[in-house]
Amino acid sequence: MNTVITIGREFGSGGHEIGLKLADALHIPFYDKLLVSMVAEEGEFAQEFLDEMDEKVDIHIAPFLATRSSYSVYQQPMSDRIFFRQAEIIRGLADEGPCVIVGRCADYVLAERKNVLRVFLYGELEDRILRKSKMNELADMEKDSLRKHVQNTDKKRARYYRHYTGLKWGDKENYDLCINTSKTGVDGAVETIKGFINAREAYLAPASES
Amino acid sequence: MNTVITIGREFGSGGHEIGLKLADALHIPFYDKLLVSMVAEEGEFAQEFLDEMDEKVDIHIAPFLATRSSYSVYQQPMSDRIFFRQAEIIRGLADEGPCVIVGRCADYVLAERKNVLRVFLYGELEDRILRKSKMNELADMEKDSLRKHVQNTDKKRARYYRHYTGLKWGDKENYDLCINTSKTGVDGAVETIKGFINAREAYLAPASES
Repeated sequence: MNTVITIGREFGSGGHEIGLKLADALHIPFYDKLLVSMVAEEGEFAQEFLDEMDEKVDIHIAPFLATRSSYSVYQQPMSDRIFFRQAEIIRGLADEGPCVIVGRCADYVLAERKNVLRVFLYGELEDRILRKSKMNELADMEKDSLRKHVQNTDKKRARYYRHYTGLKWGDKENYDLCINTSKTGVDGAVETIKGFINAREAYLAPASES
Repeated sequence: MNTVITIGREFGSGGHEIGLKLADALHIPFYDKLLVSMVAEEGEFAQEFLDEMDEKVDIHIAPFLATRSSYSVYQQPMSDRIFFRQAEIIRGLADEGPCVIVGRCADYVLAERKNVLRVFLYGELEDRILRKSKMNELADMEKDSLRKHVQNTDKKRARYYRHYTGLKWGDKENYDLCINTSKTGVDGAVETIKGFINAREAYLAPASES
């Protein structure tokens, strides 16, 4: 298999877990927040700042909070520099072989490549809130606050996606497969994506379809 | 299996063939234009008129072209009467057991039912034009005319869907699974949907997921 799978996802739809299980089942690397660390390792940006900026657009961050080198921040917003560096890393990873990449507009960055399958995961809002309420770090949050947190996170992701792609986040036209994970759960979504990858490979193989 | 599968589809994405093969593989009934004949059999509307009106909204049709009974056309547009009668038939078919229903806003008509999976099929415009160019009845059409025909048919479907549901045709929020058939072909889409149905049933089964 030579397929790179990108996964966009609504907050709470299980994207991280689904991507991780898929990569595990296919024995290929998984990249999610790890991409942030890969940028950090280059030393231009502090890890804490990158964590704070992950999948966000913000041109109002005071540069002194962010930078180790300092000059060019006045020429290009910080979030743009992070995005473009991350995009280069994504292209490099896709060159290396099959993998699963979650978020970070990877579908857009790799859209022109023939071996890329772009997946988007979504779900009913109530299911996504319930899912997040079971997570350790959010277990103490009140239901109303959690609902707002889920909705705001989606808004930030949509803004980030719009900013860097000019396209509408979650619009099926930008993806090859969209799954409502409220209908499948995590394991069912993994199975559905695996089936889709197999279907794709059979379709590409010579004489697979009359 | 007790699942009813509704399929919305862009023109030329293979929806008819995919629905037919899926129904065949699952040994369940398939309803597409057959629904039109089921309305016709009741004798209120002429078959030719129903064919002409299929998945269209048009309140400007001269009533004398259309009706066998004549009075109530002045109270309710003809296309609405056909739609609502068709929706009743769709609900009745879903009551009877598992089946595949293509088009006619069946996803919306059955949206509240737990055993319904709503699929939307789409594809790259060029692939869809190519697909249609191979069909007997359109084989003589010039490429530019065919392109317009494909685009106009999609526009009509979108208008029809918007009129009767108030929702955006093809918006993933209205479906549970959206597949770009340019990536899978007909057989691959059938396999992907079958995998999704299995995933759904495993998810619903007790103790299927921790």
